[in-house]
Amino acid sequence: MLNLHFRYQNMKNLLVASTSTVFGGNYLDYLAEEMASLFHNTTEVLFIPYARPNGISHDSYTAKAAEAFSKIDKKLIGIHTLPNPETAIRQAKGVFTGGGNTFLLVAQLYANQVMQPLREAIFNGLPYMGTSAGSNICGVTMQTTNDMPIVYPPSFKTLGTLPFNINPHYLDPDPTSQHMGETRETRIKEYHTQNTVPVVGLREGSWLQVSGDNIVLKGTLTARIFQQNKEPFEVETGTALTTLF
Amino acid sequence: MLNLHFRYQNMKNLLVASTSTVFGGNYLDYLAEEMASLFHNTTEVLFIPYARPNGISHDSYTAKAAEAFSKIDKKLIGIHTLPNPETAIRQAKGVFTGGGNTFLLVAQLYANQVMQPLREAIFNGLPYMGTSAGSNICGVTMQTTNDMPIVYPPSFKTLGTLPFNINPHYLDPDPTSQHMGETRETRIKEYHTQNTVPVVGLREGSWLQVSGDNIVLKGTLTARIFQQNKEPFEVETGTALTTLF
Repeated sequence: MLNLHFRYQNMKNLLVASTSTVFGGNYLDYLAEEMASLFHNTTEVLFIPYARPNGISHDSYTAKAAEAFSKIDKKLIGIHTLPNPETAIRQAKGVFTGGGNTFLLVAQLYANQVMQPLREAIFNGLPYMGTSAGSNICGVTMQTTNDMPIVYPPSFKTLGTLPFNINPHYLDPDPTSQHMGETRETRIKEYHTQNTVPVVGLREGSWLQVSGDNIVLKGTLTARIFQQNKEPFEVETGTALTTLF
Repeated sequence: MLNLHFRYQNMKNLLVASTSTVFGGNYLDYLAEEMASLFHNTTEVLFIPYARPNGISHDSYTAKAAEAFSKIDKKLIGIHTLPNPETAIRQAKGVFTGGGNTFLLVAQLYANQVMQPLREAIFNGLPYMGTSAGSNICGVTMQTTNDMPIVYPPSFKTLGTLPFNINPHYLDPDPTSQHMGETRETRIKEYHTQNTVPVVGLREGSWLQVSGDNIVLKGTLTARIFQQNKEPFEVETGTALTTLF
C-alpha cells in the first residue's frame, strides 16, 4: 500500500525551459500560454531569484519576473521576502525559478535549506517552472551547466526530478569559428568520461513538459541527446524522452 | 633575515598561455621559442596531463605533448608514470600543465597531493608553463574557468602564483549573435558580485611572462582587465600587469 501511495503521489508537473527569452522577444513572452496552463490552479506563484543574472538584486529580479507574470494575472512573491524559505516552499501552490548563475542558485538553495523540501513538493505535484539555471537544477546534478563557478556549493547534486541532466542554451558548433575553446559537444563528451547520467541539450525556444513520469519535448526545435559511450543524436519536438533511456 | 631570504626565493618563472594552439597552427608551435627559453636549464620536463581534453587518456595526452617538446629537444615525462607525484614535483627541473577540463585537473591535483608542492616549487623558481586549464590554476582560484563542472573538486582554490585570476580563451561578445546565453563579460561580472579578485581575460595567442614579481602581457593582442566595481578595460601587449592592481 505504501508503494502504491508513493506512486500515486508521483504527479510531477513541470515546465523545464532552455531560456527565459528568445531572440527578439520579451522576458517569458513565448511561454505565456504554457505558464497560464501550468499555474491554472493558483493566483500566486513563489519566485526563487537566487541565481541573480548579471548580479541583479533579489528585489529587482522579482520585480522583473512579476511583470511577466502579471500578464497572465498571477501575483509573484519572492522567496527572499518570506521569513522561512522552507515553509514558503511547503505552502506554495506554484514555484518559478529564474535563470542566472547555477552555482550561486545551488549554493543558496542549500544555504536556505530549500533543495530537499522543493524536491519533495515537486514529487508531490507542486507545479514548477524553471528557465535556464532554474531548469538545470531539475536534473540529477548541475554538472552540465554552462556557468562560471563563482561560488563553491556544498554539492553539485540537484533536484533529480528528471532522470537525466539538462544542458540549457544548447549551442551547435559553429563551423566558421576560429575560436579554439571547447565546443558544447566536446564539454558534454568530457562530462561523460566521468559520469553516466544522460544529458539533454535543450536549444533556446525548447522546453520539456513533465506530467508524472511523462516527459515531452516542446517548441519547434529538435533536442540533442548525449549518452555515455554512444554517438549523440537528435530527437524531434513531441518526442517522449522517457522512452529513450 | 628570514623575510629577505623569502623574498630572494620569490624567483617565479612562468609562461601562462591562453591556449595551446592558435587557429590554423599546430599544438604549441607558436610558443616554441618561449618554451625553449623557459626550459633552457633542463632537458627533461614533467608533464601534468590530468585535465584530459576530450577525455583523452593520460598516455595519449603525454605522447601528443611530448611530440611538441621533442621539436625543442626536450624529453617530456608524464607525472602519472612516476610512483610518487609529490616527489616528482620536488625533483622536477621544469613543469608543463596542459589544457582540458579545469575541474578534473584541480580534483586530480588535490587527490594526488600535487597542489601544495607545485605551488612551493614555483615560488622557489621552478620553471612552469601552463596552457588553458594549466594557466587557470596559476590564479588565486579556478573560479573564472569556462569549463563544465564534470567532477566536484575539494576546493576551487588553486596555485595562487598570480595575484589575480585568469579567464583563458577570452572571447569578445559577438554583436551579430542571436544566442541568449551569457557573454563571457557577463559571466565575469557575475563573478565580481561574489568575489574581489581581479580577472585577466587572456585572448587566444596571448600569454603572460612571469619573472619574480614582474608579470608582462605577451603576444600581439590586448588583454581585458576586470575589477570589482570598475568598468573593464584593455591593456596593450608589453604592459606590466603588476602595476595595474
